[in-house]
Amino acid sequence: MPTKAFGAHAADQPLVALDIERRTPGARDVQIEIAYCGVCHSDLHTVKSEWSGTQYPCVPGHEIVGTVSAVGSDVSGFKVGDTVGVGCMVDSCQHCAACAEGLEQYCENGFTGTYNGRTQDPPGYTLGGYSQRITVDERFVLRINHPSDQLAAVAPLLCAGITTYSPLRHWNVGPGKKVGIVGIGGLGHMGIKIAHAMGAHVVAFTTSESKRQDAHALGADEVVVSRDADAMAAHAGSFDFILDTVAASHVLDAFTALLKRDGTLCLVGVPEDPHPSPSVGMLIFGRRSIAGSLIGGIRETQEMLDFCAEHGIVADIEMIPAQAINEAYERMVRSDVKYRFVIDIASLAA
Amino acid sequence: MPTKAFGAHAADQPLVALDIERRTPGARDVQIEIAYCGVCHSDLHTVKSEWSGTQYPCVPGHEIVGTVSAVGSDVSGFKVGDTVGVGCMVDSCQHCAACAEGLEQYCENGFTGTYNGRTQDPPGYTLGGYSQRITVDERFVLRINHPSDQLAAVAPLLCAGITTYSPLRHWNVGPGKKVGIVGIGGLGHMGIKIAHAMGAHVVAFTTSESKRQDAHALGADEVVVSRDADAMAAHAGSFDFILDTVAASHVLDAFTALLKRDGTLCLVGVPEDPHPSPSVGMLIFGRRSIAGSLIGGIRETQEMLDFCAEHGIVADIEMIPAQAINEAYERMVRSDVKYRFVIDIASLAA
Repeated sequence: MPTKAFGAHAADQPLVALDIERRTPGARDVQIEIAYCGVCHSDLHTVKSEWSGTQYPCVPGHEIVGTVSAVGSDVSGFKVGDTVGVGCMVDSCQHCAACAEGLEQYCENGFTGTYNGRTQDPPGYTLGGYSQRITVDERFVLRINHPSDQLAAVAPLLCAGITTYSPLRHWNVGPGKKVGIVGIGGLGHMGIKIAHAMGAHVVAFTTSESKRQDAHALGADEVVVSRDADAMAAHAGSFDFILDTVAASHVLDAFTALLKRDGTLCLVGVPEDPHPSPSVGMLIFGRRSIAGSLIGGIRETQEMLDFCAEHGIVADIEMIPAQAINEAYERMVRSDVKYRFVIDIASLAA
Repeated sequence: MPTKAFGAHAADQPLVALDIERRTPGARDVQIEIAYCGVCHSDLHTVKSEWSGTQYPCVPGHEIVGTVSAVGSDVSGFKVGDTVGVGCMVDSCQHCAACAEGLEQYCENGFTGTYNGRTQDPPGYTLGGYSQRITVDERFVLRINHPSDQLAAVAPLLCAGITTYSPLRHWNVGPGKKVGIVGIGGLGHMGIKIAHAMGAHVVAFTTSESKRQDAHALGADEVVVSRDADAMAAHAGSFDFILDTVAASHVLDAFTALLKRDGTLCLVGVPEDPHPSPSVGMLIFGRRSIAGSLIGGIRETQEMLDFCAEHGIVADIEMIPAQAINEAYERMVRSDVKYRFVIDIASLAA
């Protein structure tokens, strides 16, 4: 099925209009007309081949929302007209221990990414959500229960939402817990909203005094400018959990020091240059941990969407037409967006 | 009470015979005639002022075993003639959350170390177990149930034993778990014995092919020479828990890569120079953790001693007279000991 898309022909080329093919739905497939697609920093890393292995032409996008337009004969969970989403994964092995536990993101044989992942469909690798439609195995399709006028703002939940929700759940964030969210960007602003909705006492950490009011508006009970040593010291040893969404290299010890005994600092961004090596003494004196977490499984992504619908949580977005994506990437690199760009896929038909 | 001891007058001086004073037992005190004292790497770091803040003269030693010679009027748990031990702590605040949970090692007001810790006794800081006797609050005295002919080899359990037992217990090592022990020295050899007794499948990691047989004899099911990349790769993603006892700076990623999803690499040694900064991607892709752990609380230390008595576990030791301590330190730095020196305190009377 011929499909209009937006993507790049090479690492050093801007994104342009492309024509791609989508497979006709197989027995277990759901065909989705895409309405909106969020813009994730991973899109940019992949398009520019900043991580190894990008295949071209590359069509990014893994924060996909839209409407079911066809289903295969064996599809039981979805019907034409349903509002659905697709996140970072479109397949996994389905037979390893991780898949069996519903943790497809840790599939021991490697999940299939929504773009630049291996597939039998032409051209041999997956093409993402900067496109009019996509065909996906129903096991990787999510149900969306938000009001229809929020649909564009739901898109970023599929990556930014689940990337923060999953560790907050895994480390038992909730009432009575003091939780830090480091960085107020695409991920961090979701982390603040979700941790707040989970009932925790939420402290947002930012390097910019200018983000203080916004952070409170997002749901932070307290805001700490991390360059203020006294403000940081006032929170020493007091956090149950800190979610660090900052991918740029930075001093982790500044946050490890704020953890209680048995507290965890969880990283969700891979820095281009390594963080300064964390203090081992700070881990030992307090039995603290530094951990990592990757998106979430399909079951948990559905749980997150339902949780967000129930609590009225969506992303704060700036809508753009596909034709503005190259400028949006430039602004995203400068953190000049509150807090997530979302492409209006209708613009592809223009 | 005048007491013979062995210690150093300055960082650049060898240890020599000293005369010190011990306090007369107060109402809650236990006076112990020391029989043996293990030699820990921390002793050397402190005596040589490699960590900040050593006060002189310094009498180290926190792997203490001996016999009760007097008890205060309010002591209920010990009587004259009991075989007892004292580990790394002789006091703590007793009113913080950590103390309330029996985790005095994480006392929020700082526990009192068995040597070089602040005390009201002269000379104002604590003097350790390289001495004929010690007076200790009964809450910090441990009961020893091993056969009496094993007493010298029990001494290292008070630090090396609990430092490995506590994290192995905390991270639920037991039957069905695959556990790595990195480094086969004073700590590592105890870790192998204890993890084996807990019923885990134990893999010992060493840089020396020459330690293979010894590691098996200690209880390792498998031994991997960590310089052998193929042997390491064969264990990728397979460990529930790895206890890293090596304090020298080394590449942690080599071990993080061997953890299963949700696995933990626990460090118990503080390196003089930082480890190379660990890979964040390796934490994220697998939700892995790097953690630290510090000795153990008093309740858990007693549990460890009872566990070791039940399973016939003691340290492998080389007994020395106090007069040989300076040479022993030199050999310890070269890892030329299997696996712990223990001072025969009777030698102090010579």
